[in-house]
Amino acid sequence: MAYDGTNFAGFQRQPNQRTVEQVFSKAVNKMAKDPAEPIIVYGAGRTDAGVHAFGQTIHFDLPYEIRAEGVRRGLNSLLPMDTLIKSVEIVSADFHARYDTVGKRYWYRAYQNEFVDPFKRHYTGHFKFQADIARIQQAIPDLVGRHDFSTFVASGSQAHDHVREIYSAKAWALPDENEIQFEFCGSGFLYNQVRIMVALLMEIGQGRRAVDCIPGLLAAKDREQARGTAPASGLYMKRVYYDQAELERDLEQEK
Amino acid sequence: MAYDGTNFAGFQRQPNQRTVEQVFSKAVNKMAKDPAEPIIVYGAGRTDAGVHAFGQTIHFDLPYEIRAEGVRRGLNSLLPMDTLIKSVEIVSADFHARYDTVGKRYWYRAYQNEFVDPFKRHYTGHFKFQADIARIQQAIPDLVGRHDFSTFVASGSQAHDHVREIYSAKAWALPDENEIQFEFCGSGFLYNQVRIMVALLMEIGQGRRAVDCIPGLLAAKDREQARGTAPASGLYMKRVYYDQAELERDLEQEK
Repeated sequence: MAYDGTNFAGFQRQPNQRTVEQVFSKAVNKMAKDPAEPIIVYGAGRTDAGVHAFGQTIHFDLPYEIRAEGVRRGLNSLLPMDTLIKSVEIVSADFHARYDTVGKRYWYRAYQNEFVDPFKRHYTGHFKFQADIARIQQAIPDLVGRHDFSTFVASGSQAHDHVREIYSAKAWALPDENEIQFEFCGSGFLYNQVRIMVALLMEIGQGRRAVDCIPGLLAAKDREQARGTAPASGLYMKRVYYDQAELERDLEQEK
Repeated sequence: MAYDGTNFAGFQRQPNQRTVEQVFSKAVNKMAKDPAEPIIVYGAGRTDAGVHAFGQTIHFDLPYEIRAEGVRRGLNSLLPMDTLIKSVEIVSADFHARYDTVGKRYWYRAYQNEFVDPFKRHYTGHFKFQADIARIQQAIPDLVGRHDFSTFVASGSQAHDHVREIYSAKAWALPDENEIQFEFCGSGFLYNQVRIMVALLMEIGQGRRAVDCIPGLLAAKDREQARGTAPASGLYMKRVYYDQAELERDLEQEK
């Protein structure tokens, strides 16, 4: 599914807040005629307030049989305009949107200019100072691989283990758009990890950090050493993988 | 200047509404330390609620001398994030943003799909049914030239004379984006004229009107014969011309 994160207080249900989980739960339960036992919706990942998705995945158990296409059309007719069900598949009873993932892919759009662009304000992170893409491209491979990402996790994280594997990390410039874009594919990401990595890479690009600083930061395992967090508005959950072969095929094509 | 029209009740000042004119007037007067006689801001064209601009022009008279770059930075620091001053020029005392125009250029983005795309809902007009770009391209040249556009004006228009000249009119498809885009350049446009022309062209593309219907509609001079109005969210004021040579150069390049 896709959503514009601008008007959501993130994915996870919170009292008195408009969240993605709440909006999708409401639509699913309405489609199912509000059963006595409410249907619970499970997402692959909990995006923060302002973070977008065009490849989030959710699962839920319907108490009756229905064609996948009927679910897609029914939910899209009930959902608000800033959300969209892109496709629906009927899965095995033990499928879990969160626990069955084999990889996730995030995209980040950094907009560089003195002032915010009115059309990009909700869809990019704004950076006042220009970064050198060559420096970023030189540094970014140091993030790839299996690492303890304790330096790159926000203090609100509830994860006990901070070891994650990044399968691929890329950055490229779109000079006509004044943008630098990033894409990360990995086993999973810690709370705010992508935004912390982007903030660091932008600092490297701006010459405020050394190009070879990443190995030392990873070794430090100390959140205080990478304090920046890129704005939520530039982050997009692009893809969730459940099939190892599909993930590997995509990674192969990226090379 | 540019603005995202989503959260504006149009350009023109209205009581108790957030309008482009009001927001810019406030910034200009604040920059000038709120003079006893308020500075009035004049725009090249009055865009409707929801209509965007990335080439609107305004003028105003400052009671003191200041460098153009100082105005650009000063205003951008005071303006809200959905607006941007792109460039500032000091002009002759008799320049008028509205009356000195020699041409205007509008862009329209029509998104075609069963359901709205969350990321395009504010930035395109939504059309449920697919239009055939070949039919639109066959019909669109009939709009070019000097015509009485009474069939293509909304009932709220205060213009006495409905004769306008369209210098160029183009349509093209972006299949990967499910979009058809339009661009119109003309001497000036009547109230809702571009949106009415787009609605008609989409009807032609969808096969609901004949490809050769435009000459008859123009001759009828009857608003009742072209009742559709494409959504405001797809319309962008792209460019205002004050220099005939510049306008002609752009039109020549389009050929």
